[in-house]
Amino acid sequence: MAAEGILAVRQLQASDFDKGFLEVLAHLTTVGDVSREAFEEQLKRRDAAGGYHTVVIEDDGRIVATAAMIVELKFIHGCSKVGHIEDVVVDPAYRGKKLGIKLIEALVEAARGAGCYKIILDCNEANTAFYEKCGLTRKEVQMVKYLDR
Amino acid sequence: MAAEGILAVRQLQASDFDKGFLEVLAHLTTVGDVSREAFEEQLKRRDAAGGYHTVVIEDDGRIVATAAMIVELKFIHGCSKVGHIEDVVVDPAYRGKKLGIKLIEALVEAARGAGCYKIILDCNEANTAFYEKCGLTRKEVQMVKYLDR
Ligand SMILES: CC(C)(COP(=O)(O)OP(=O)(O)OC[C@H]1O[C@@H](n2cnc3c(N)ncnc32)[C@H](O)[C@@H]1OP(=O)(O)O)[C@@H](O)C(=O)NCCC(=O)NCCS
Ligand SMILES: CC(C)(COP(=O)(O)OP(=O)(O)OC[C@H]1O[C@@H](n2cnc3c(N)ncnc32)[C@H](O)[C@@H]1OP(=O)(O)O)[C@@H](O)C(=O)NCCC(=O)NCCS
Repeated sequence: MAAEGILAVRQLQASDFDKGFLEVLAHLTTVGDVSREAFEEQLKRRDAAGGYHTVVIEDDGRIVATAAMIVELKFIHGCSKVGHIEDVVVDPAYRGKKLGIKLIEALVEAARGAGCYKIILDCNEANTAFYEKCGLTRKEVQMVKYLDR
Repeated sequence: MAAEGILAVRQLQASDFDKGFLEVLAHLTTVGDVSREAFEEQLKRRDAAGGYHTVVIEDDGRIVATAAMIVELKFIHGCSKVGHIEDVVVDPAYRGKKLGIKLIEALVEAARGAGCYKIILDCNEANTAFYEKCGLTRKEVQMVKYLDR
């Protein structure tokens, strides 16, 4: 742990490739073969599009937690916005230390700052308790279709 | 109905403001006071960001159905993409005529074209049967937090 004992939430930056950003994501799902170039290009595309917020927590030079949000521009509710939270994960060795809740709180603040009227996310049954601790409530049913390209 | 009896799905355009686009959305939820200028600006912001697909069906000079999708650029799965389907609605007088299914099929094709590995959406219990007819299956739980700005 860092000397001050408090791990700050900050924005993802290109140099996080070398700090194990993708390795943390791999605790969530398959990341696959993502080169430094591919990572940097995707980061640039997200920055160019605008509306992406990716937060990380670093300890001792390594990324130990991350979460992302994409802000959707709507026509409904007076051309309002909705924040979609995605890809929330804490390194197994760092779970249960309130890092998850800090990530969500940072994204909720970012959503508020961006003018979103709500934030939404999809999770499995087992994670609903964690998100309830973060102040979210159950709402709808997520439906999916996988595309064979 | 149009003479040919088949209503084609097409992309939303700025002139749809005058064809009742917002009135159709009002059958889904509160649209509020959206001026032509606000609509056009939001459309431009969405176009500039890229990744937004908004489809409409027109009959006799009026928009009678619409659905939208935002394509999210991810790092996981080899910097893949996910299509988020949003704001699906058919004018009550046109329901049960397969327009809903045509909207979803058009967005699934757009998602495939964009290289998405899946499309997802959130809906209430009552609408799951419609989306199952569209080839989607139930997956996770949607959680929400409303923000008081
Ligand atoms: C879910 C996850 C992000 C939580 O992160 P975390 O840092 O361990 O959670 P926190 O320490 O911030 O927990 C905050 C609160 O939620 C509770 N909580 C966390 N995970 C929980 C769970 N699975 N079930 C019930 N409560 C849980 C904690 O006990 C804590 O409660 P408290 O404030 O009363 O002590 C983490 O477990 C994880 O990365 N899981 C694997 C990846 C994943 O499933 N991501 C979510 C995809 S939708
Ligand atoms: C949900 C909605 C978009 C469906 O559009 P639609 O044009 O009436 O649906 P379609 O005619 O394309 O229906 C396709 C199939 O789904 C079935 N279906 C449609 N709505 C259904 C429902 N509520 N329950 C069960 N089946 C339904 C149809 O019977 C049809 O089945 P079939 O192919 O066996 O005949 C429309 O009812 C609507 O706008 N509802 C209000 C807004 C809303 O709830 N939007 C969804 C937000 S997530």
